[in-house]
Amino acid sequence: MVAKYQKEHEVAYYECDINQTMTFPAMLGVAIKVSEEQSAVLERGPEYIRSFGLTWIITTYHITVNRLPMVGEQIMVSTQAKEYNKYFCYRYFWLHDAQGNELVKIESVFALMDLETRKVSSVPDEIVAPFESEKIKRIKRYPKINSPEKGHFLPYRVRFYDIDSNQHVNNAMYFNWLLDVLGYEFLTTHQVKEITIRFDREVEYGNLVESHFETIRDENHLETLHEIRIGETTYCEAAMKWHERTKNNENN
Amino acid sequence: MVAKYQKEHEVAYYECDINQTMTFPAMLGVAIKVSEEQSAVLERGPEYIRSFGLTWIITTYHITVNRLPMVGEQIMVSTQAKEYNKYFCYRYFWLHDAQGNELVKIESVFALMDLETRKVSSVPDEIVAPFESEKIKRIKRYPKINSPEKGHFLPYRVRFYDIDSNQHVNNAMYFNWLLDVLGYEFLTTHQVKEITIRFDREVEYGNLVESHFETIRDENHLETLHEIRIGETTYCEAAMKWHERTKNNENN
Repeated sequence: MVAKYQKEHEVAYYECDINQTMTFPAMLGVAIKVSEEQSAVLERGPEYIRSFGLTWIITTYHITVNRLPMVGEQIMVSTQAKEYNKYFCYRYFWLHDAQGNELVKIESVFALMDLETRKVSSVPDEIVAPFESEKIKRIKRYPKINSPEKGHFLPYRVRFYDIDSNQHVNNAMYFNWLLDVLGYEFLTTHQVKEITIRFDREVEYGNLVESHFETIRDENHLETLHEIRIGETTYCEAAMKWHERTKNNENN
Repeated sequence: MVAKYQKEHEVAYYECDINQTMTFPAMLGVAIKVSEEQSAVLERGPEYIRSFGLTWIITTYHITVNRLPMVGEQIMVSTQAKEYNKYFCYRYFWLHDAQGNELVKIESVFALMDLETRKVSSVPDEIVAPFESEKIKRIKRYPKINSPEKGHFLPYRVRFYDIDSNQHVNNAMYFNWLLDVLGYEFLTTHQVKEITIRFDREVEYGNLVESHFETIRDENHLETLHEIRIGETTYCEAAMKWHERTKNNENN
């Protein structure tokens, strides 16, 4: 059975923030690495994809957090390419603790981009066949992401070390810009429980991006809306649902 | 024999930059983790150190690079607390490739800071005894770091995710500010062979630091001088020696 692929991971101190929990860039880094290993095992690595003149892009993450992995914790990272349709592949990732409890679930939408035209290509069956994904007709819908009201933002310059060895600004880096803007006080007193993020355009080295956000509160509900913009153009949109961190500093 | 401690590490894509080689923050993260594991094994973890009212700080790294670890490479990370004197502990780290070749050597200087007075404390013998370090009289000297001429700098805001689970701005993060300022063109055509870096003061969340640099070239010699400053105060100084990357994109 090759459909599901998994690997153990020990959460390192440098993968965690001041809350002692694993950061999103670190979780996504580890998750994508596990999927790259599965692709290599199934002989569907980047060279094979490039032989079709294509490359993978990630368009959406929908992340559900029960509990964030903690410093020093041994977690199991698993992935499965569950479904695909004409244009999109739906890959799931799960982080589980040593007792088998689901900590984090990441649903992701991958597409194939034509390296010449830079447009999304239909998915060749040969590419996905060994993953034993189910072919579906419908396009999956994730929660609608509303735009933040204009007003609150900080600028971030895209740095050399935001580009990873895949030659692009690592998708996971967007999380640093999206979250940092919320500030120390908010980030140490709240924990995210759901994130929907859509990547619209690719930012490049040297760009000065603006990370906009709006906080929406009512009695039982705390949500933040986000956009990464350059001028009037949107590069990335996100909506995040939060709850307050309990006072005893527990991770829930 | 516990004096030397080592662990294998597979270099992940997200630990590497566009040159396909491991970044300094990633190398130092992995190295420090190995030393923390050694300390835990020897029952000299952070709680033990805190029982003396102390905490470790790193004052200096002197790094020699033969070849940087590459994406996907299996490396051996080893460490030894080699020597100590009244105030300083000299810990070495080595990264070796699978054939046993030394890739990177990191000499580091640790000191113990009194948590109340925030001053450097003398080193209690009980803390270092199990590491089997040699007690020496002399203070080791590393190459003098000259100041860069004023002129070239970029500002960097200290972000939430620059603080790690140890509650401080991770020392390794300074490398992002020190190096990013050199620019894409320089960083993709040169490779570092030696770094001396000294940490003078701790930057804090929200600080806007300036990363200053000067490039010094003569026929057989390329060096960059660096300072991280806030106003007229120096927080970190570094000198780096470089050579040109060979055209065939080899890592040497």
